[in-house]
Amino acid sequence: MKGEMGDSWHAFLNSASKDRPVVRAPVEHGDPSIDYAVAWAPEPGLLASLPNLKAIFSVGAGVDHLFRDPDLPNVPIVRVVAEDLTNRMSEYVVWRVLDHHRQGDRYRRQQTQRLWGEDLDQPVAADVTVGILGLGALGQDAARKLRALGFQVAGWSRSPKTMEGVQSFAGENGLDDFLKISDMIVCLLPLTDETRHILSLPLFEKLKKGGPFGAPVLINAGRGGQQVEEDIVTALDRRLLSAASLDVFNGEPLSPDSPLWLDERIFITPHAAATSVASAIVPGMLEQMDRHDAGEPLKNLVDRSRNY
Amino acid sequence: MKGEMGDSWHAFLNSASKDRPVVRAPVEHGDPSIDYAVAWAPEPGLLASLPNLKAIFSVGAGVDHLFRDPDLPNVPIVRVVAEDLTNRMSEYVVWRVLDHHRQGDRYRRQQTQRLWGEDLDQPVAADVTVGILGLGALGQDAARKLRALGFQVAGWSRSPKTMEGVQSFAGENGLDDFLKISDMIVCLLPLTDETRHILSLPLFEKLKKGGPFGAPVLINAGRGGQQVEEDIVTALDRRLLSAASLDVFNGEPLSPDSPLWLDERIFITPHAAATSVASAIVPGMLEQMDRHDAGEPLKNLVDRSRNY
Ligand SMILES: NC(=O)c1ccc[n+]([C@@H]2O[C@H](COP(=O)([O-])OP(=O)(O)OC[C@H]3O[C@@H](n4cnc5c(N)ncnc54)[C@H](OP(=O)(O)O)[C@@H]3O)[C@@H](O)[C@H]2O)c1
Ligand SMILES: NC(=O)c1ccc[n+]([C@@H]2O[C@H](COP(=O)([O-])OP(=O)(O)OC[C@H]3O[C@@H](n4cnc5c(N)ncnc54)[C@H](OP(=O)(O)O)[C@@H]3O)[C@@H](O)[C@H]2O)c1
Repeated sequence: MKGEMGDSWHAFLNSASKDRPVVRAPVEHGDPSIDYAVAWAPEPGLLASLPNLKAIFSVGAGVDHLFRDPDLPNVPIVRVVAEDLTNRMSEYVVWRVLDHHRQGDRYRRQQTQRLWGEDLDQPVAADVTVGILGLGALGQDAARKLRALGFQVAGWSRSPKTMEGVQSFAGENGLDDFLKISDMIVCLLPLTDETRHILSLPLFEKLKKGGPFGAPVLINAGRGGQQVEEDIVTALDRRLLSAASLDVFNGEPLSPDSPLWLDERIFITPHAAATSVASAIVPGMLEQMDRHDAGEPLKNLVDRSRNY
Repeated sequence: MKGEMGDSWHAFLNSASKDRPVVRAPVEHGDPSIDYAVAWAPEPGLLASLPNLKAIFSVGAGVDHLFRDPDLPNVPIVRVVAEDLTNRMSEYVVWRVLDHHRQGDRYRRQQTQRLWGEDLDQPVAADVTVGILGLGALGQDAARKLRALGFQVAGWSRSPKTMEGVQSFAGENGLDDFLKISDMIVCLLPLTDETRHILSLPLFEKLKKGGPFGAPVLINAGRGGQQVEEDIVTALDRRLLSAASLDVFNGEPLSPDSPLWLDERIFITPHAAATSVASAIVPGMLEQMDRHDAGEPLKNLVDRSRNY
């Protein structure tokens, strides 16, 4: 077993793994003692060199970093599905939706001007449709929590979903209708060849015109590779979008030179929407290793035919 | 019947009231045609002069403005309890709780400095106790919605409450224990002699020390008269509080001279947490007038012995 992340992961794996020894990266190519790898973005070729590797555990919900290794061995890949991670993501989504919905920027601007400007046109949540791109483990939980607050919720996924109070749209054919009704777009898709650069002008041009915020709001907590950053700025300039909250970027950390930083229509967080916390995730990983060693099937497996 | 608020109330009352004529303020003292008053802060003595007044309908959930009239006649007072208003308030509360919880200020500050500063110590909602002062129509709904997001919730009221997942504290004897466990304090109390200036140094000194935000956060969406504004600043200086969101003030509109405006630890909204929207509230008022005329009892009555 191999700990690749920072100190907290190593320490936590070490203390929780009992009689299962933990080796920390860098490890030797071909190390025969390693049967499980815990990894984020391993050195290409390293995992393929391990002769006794039985499975790879991603430390995140997304596995796009793993697939950057062209020699990724054909062993099962387990991704993170954990209540702690899911709750954090839903907190982020509801927080960003509410801050746009309740006009946080407007009030913050008024405050610096010592301006008491009431708003008699504040919509209620029931007047606003939040469209979630990706109705998986994270999207479904966010949908439920937005519903609990009274928002209208729509979702888009590959396969249609049945969720109480959530309008489901599926596949390429369902995308346009989904975009036409959404006042906010929340991206919680995995990064694959199909979703790369999906958040770009062709999509923004198909969004609803107008609506309670003048134009739709974009929230991306999926992956930076899903967005074309110049297109987001263009869409804001053209009022195809009214505002954006971005947690992920094409390059991370976001370069100090990026024009996104000082764009007042954009709110930036440093890939902090839902951090994988070792103490909340390692116990489930170790349990799965024990299950697998006992011949039981692994859960939360990545489908290698679709790369998520 | 008397419309006292702005144009939208008058227009909406007029169009919805069918064969019930609507008179708009100013009205004559002693006008015998008025049987129901729809009011916020009427001219003192006016309501007492109306010989045929059967009931007073407050346009808000709070009735403290009505009680400023020393001659308020002894007729039933109906206050607003409406889904639309309740939903708006819960949106505000959850929005402010999440913005403090997810460190909105920190990320906004980092952004202006083009700084990618990750946070590895972000607590989850389950680590945070939100204490709500006032578990009435508004406090209970906010409590339910905060629970749905995973926060620990405690409430303080005059009489003890039984709500799933909510720790109930009651009366003066229950206050200290409530303050000791709360990481955020949300005030949704009515303004009465008992609650005036409750949010002042003696209370702030009894708050929990430390906690996930360094010190507790104050959110006041009750009434300005409940807070001592200099004490809030002192409590922030002394780190008895770490931050505050204030929707209500001693004087409204808040004076441009107030030091609160430019205090970066304080977030200000212009009494906009939960606006009474005529279209959402007038139908219920008219229904109650019809019920009352038919000899049925009025709902949502103010208890004159406790002034809320
Ligand atoms: N910013 C952060 O801090 C952070 C943290 C954690 C995760 N994430 C991101 O969130 C992503 C989602 O996580 P998850 O656990 O919810 O994943 P998941 O359970 O695999 O769900 C993915 C969803 O996307 C849909 N989808 C995938 N490809 C699609 C396509 N081409 N067209 C339409 N829909 C498509 C899937 O449809 P089906 O249901 O039909 O399969 C599914 O509903 C991760 O992959 C990661 O990139 C970000
Ligand atoms: N900022 C805004 O936009 C806005 C909008 C609407 C309302 N408000 C404010 O919100 C307030 C609450 O509205 P509501 O509809 O929830 O009122 P409510 O249903 O009457 O609830 C009031 C709550 O406060 C408790 N309470 C009253 N006096 C107390 C005392 N001395 N000690 C302890 N608890 C006490 C009550 O206890 P019991 O349950 O035991 O009676 C009750 O739980 C209104 O009065 C108004 O001031 C503000």
